[in-house]
Amino acid sequence: MPNRIPEIVILRLPMYRRALHSLEQDNIDVVSSQELGERLQVTPAQIRKDLSYFGKFGKQGMGYNVKRLLAELTRIMGLDREWPMVLVGVGRLGTAIASYPGFVPQGFRIVAAFDSAPQLIGRKIGSLAILDISEVKRTIQDKHVDIGIVAVPGSQAQRIVDMLVASGARAILNYAPATIRVPPGIHLRDIDPVLALQSMTYYLKP
Amino acid sequence: MPNRIPEIVILRLPMYRRALHSLEQDNIDVVSSQELGERLQVTPAQIRKDLSYFGKFGKQGMGYNVKRLLAELTRIMGLDREWPMVLVGVGRLGTAIASYPGFVPQGFRIVAAFDSAPQLIGRKIGSLAILDISEVKRTIQDKHVDIGIVAVPGSQAQRIVDMLVASGARAILNYAPATIRVPPGIHLRDIDPVLALQSMTYYLKP
Repeated sequence: MPNRIPEIVILRLPMYRRALHSLEQDNIDVVSSQELGERLQVTPAQIRKDLSYFGKFGKQGMGYNVKRLLAELTRIMGLDREWPMVLVGVGRLGTAIASYPGFVPQGFRIVAAFDSAPQLIGRKIGSLAILDISEVKRTIQDKHVDIGIVAVPGSQAQRIVDMLVASGARAILNYAPATIRVPPGIHLRDIDPVLALQSMTYYLKP
Repeated sequence: MPNRIPEIVILRLPMYRRALHSLEQDNIDVVSSQELGERLQVTPAQIRKDLSYFGKFGKQGMGYNVKRLLAELTRIMGLDREWPMVLVGVGRLGTAIASYPGFVPQGFRIVAAFDSAPQLIGRKIGSLAILDISEVKRTIQDKHVDIGIVAVPGSQAQRIVDMLVASGARAILNYAPATIRVPPGIHLRDIDPVLALQSMTYYLKP
């Protein structure tokens, strides 16, 4: 059953959840697909269709109960628990990622950081000790980690991703400036603010 | 003419450019659309079609000259110059963005940082003095800034984006966890690693 839901729908769920969270904080109890659509700049029909994959959430013409839909999406998305993550690469970029304030409030926690540079091993980054990359497999297995964050130079990124996957990671958040391949069943998302900027400059040229 | 090129093509150009840069560093002079497609996990036909919007870059069966195509894409994308940017919000997230090592080597430079918290104004973040948000318009105009980076709390993000656009910014890189609206002709990209993680956990649930 889960595999029948199109990936594009799954990709939109985090936006829905974020909008519902914001409505909840504004003490709004009920929201129509029209109002939700306006907030998210998608059509009400798309919202109704996307949510219909997961069951019946609203009565015709009554709107959605914000708290209930939020709780349901949280459960459906697997966000009613904490997800431990490992970070590989603690240069300048990795150090910034390790101190990124957005992860923990949303249930994502970096539980170990790795590098291959001997001078970094054993040092601390916040409360995390930096471990040798050779220990990554044991850590992933001991701590039941599913998610690996990659912050190594682009030229090393594929090798590190392969190592993470071979060690048991099933999801990769890649900050390295490289196009990475993963086997079927492994999930990958890229975070690259430079690519995002470069996709706008074409329009900004004089 | 520029407006006739589909946005989805423009969105792929940075990936092409990055792959060509990597080939150049490996001292590879010529690349076929097949080889480029394999690196990027897109079809050779798509690469040929995308690049054909910008002119004739390769001879049938001869492949692309890496250096020449890279230089042409750099020019087409407006990356043969430096782009100054302003950063709004220098809390923990904004501070991490200000020290992000990936911008400057790619020609993107934060030239001013702003906040509204009185205790931050006048302090320094790296070599940047933190300015009062009320000065953002003058800075954008004086320094000919087109790009604004937003790192404020989600609840303030729309207001700050509106202010940046009213001050003359034409492109926004939004790190705030909020869905932002911009007027036609203004470009917006979101950077949100938590949304990226949340789009994978659905698949990781036991």
